[in-house]
Amino acid sequence: MMEKFVEICYYRKDVIIYEVDMLGKLEIMLENEDNRLNYNISSLFQGVLMESISAPYADNLHKTGLKPYSQYLEFENNLIKWTIHTMTEEAKNQVINPLLNNMQDVNLKQKNITLKVLEKKVSIKTYEQLLNEKYFFQGNPYLDVTFITPTAFKSQGKYVFYPDLKLIFQSLMNKFDNSSANSSIYSEEALEHLIENSDITRYRLKSTVFHMEGIVIPSFMGRITIKIRGPQAMVNLANLLFAYGEYSGVGIKSAIGMGGLRVNERSTK
Amino acid sequence: MMEKFVEICYYRKDVIIYEVDMLGKLEIMLENEDNRLNYNISSLFQGVLMESISAPYADNLHKTGLKPYSQYLEFENNLIKWTIHTMTEEAKNQVINPLLNNMQDVNLKQKNITLKVLEKKVSIKTYEQLLNEKYFFQGNPYLDVTFITPTAFKSQGKYVFYPDLKLIFQSLMNKFDNSSANSSIYSEEALEHLIENSDITRYRLKSTVFHMEGIVIPSFMGRITIKIRGPQAMVNLANLLFAYGEYSGVGIKSAIGMGGLRVNERSTK
Repeated sequence: MMEKFVEICYYRKDVIIYEVDMLGKLEIMLENEDNRLNYNISSLFQGVLMESISAPYADNLHKTGLKPYSQYLEFENNLIKWTIHTMTEEAKNQVINPLLNNMQDVNLKQKNITLKVLEKKVSIKTYEQLLNEKYFFQGNPYLDVTFITPTAFKSQGKYVFYPDLKLIFQSLMNKFDNSSANSSIYSEEALEHLIENSDITRYRLKSTVFHMEGIVIPSFMGRITIKIRGPQAMVNLANLLFAYGEYSGVGIKSAIGMGGLRVNERSTK
Repeated sequence: MMEKFVEICYYRKDVIIYEVDMLGKLEIMLENEDNRLNYNISSLFQGVLMESISAPYADNLHKTGLKPYSQYLEFENNLIKWTIHTMTEEAKNQVINPLLNNMQDVNLKQKNITLKVLEKKVSIKTYEQLLNEKYFFQGNPYLDVTFITPTAFKSQGKYVFYPDLKLIFQSLMNKFDNSSANSSIYSEEALEHLIENSDITRYRLKSTVFHMEGIVIPSFMGRITIKIRGPQAMVNLANLLFAYGEYSGVGIKSAIGMGGLRVNERSTK
């Protein structure tokens, strides 16, 4: 069973090397005078992003249904931090580059508001780096994860607004597999194994709502610690999935502001 | 199905009238200079209570295994509020009365600390009053509940430290039934019905631990809103159970500081 994971990842490693596929991150600091804007505007940034990318690429995204990017807003001290993550090299070139090179300020047409860009920061990481850091490494069995923005899952037609480990791991595996045609980390068996060997040992969580085009999605924010039992390969797989989750987000609507997550560094438990 | 609940409660109402059974509440305000004491001392108050009650009654509690009382501590601004609830008239006489009439200060022998009593408040309520207020009344379908002290359940040999609605309702029903020989609100069917018709719609929760005789019990504190769907009788039953839960506590170790709860008044949802 464990060998299978390793095999997949070795295989994937080779694929990545040839494809030179990569993960991208762009942070844009925006002015938010008197904290007048809040989370409710998050979904408007989907419009800003769509106007920035080329029409053919937008068409392509629409046609394939794939979303090789995620984005979310954070609000702090009269500032908005807009973070855009990409999960393929193409998405980095098509989504991050135009925002990085051309955009001087952010125009929220629906609100008739223009936000001044104060700073832009960009960073990239290859899948090979990610695997070397997280999978071919003695990962920490305690994963301390913050859900930075409203997070939710859809299961059997209903919104689930608490951190169900099955839905979390399933979502991360699917997002990992979706961003590239060549990978397949997901299997029913691997998922079952992960869930059986994982427990939430600490949490601080609250329910909240995410506003999107007039609808309100029940969701949650907060922090959990997950303990992964079992062999190191299992621990490493979980670490890899969550490290990837920092780019992909988790759960529904991660392309328009939901499901942003951060893995907090911690020494031990 | 619904008729059955009503029947039970009508029946129970008659029983109560003849037994003149009652619920009691004693609040004792204690000095906590410089906030030097915290939740970790909660279980020591079991010793204080046991020394205050008569030997024959203590023996009786031990023999029957029943715990017709609950107690917990709350800490605020150099004060400790010690709340003792009783669920039978006998327990009111045997547990609350000695603390009310004889105790001048609280002596924590293990810590060699004496806490000054600043104030005592007592109140009683008959089961009949409780039923009239909560069951024979248009109860609110939204129940806003605060878990004031660390709360946990035991299920299949493991601690459950989140508010599982099945375990909550089961615990409240069992505590209701246990405190008096003549009542039987619990049935598998009634419990199933309650769970099927209840959802947590809001929450703000954190995991914590409760210290007891050197062991550490994983638990949670915080606030939830439960929505009860279905007929008014169902809504009223849930209101009755939680109103009772203010006296009995919920989950494990409510006789030594865990599982204290409060139902918050709210106008609508």
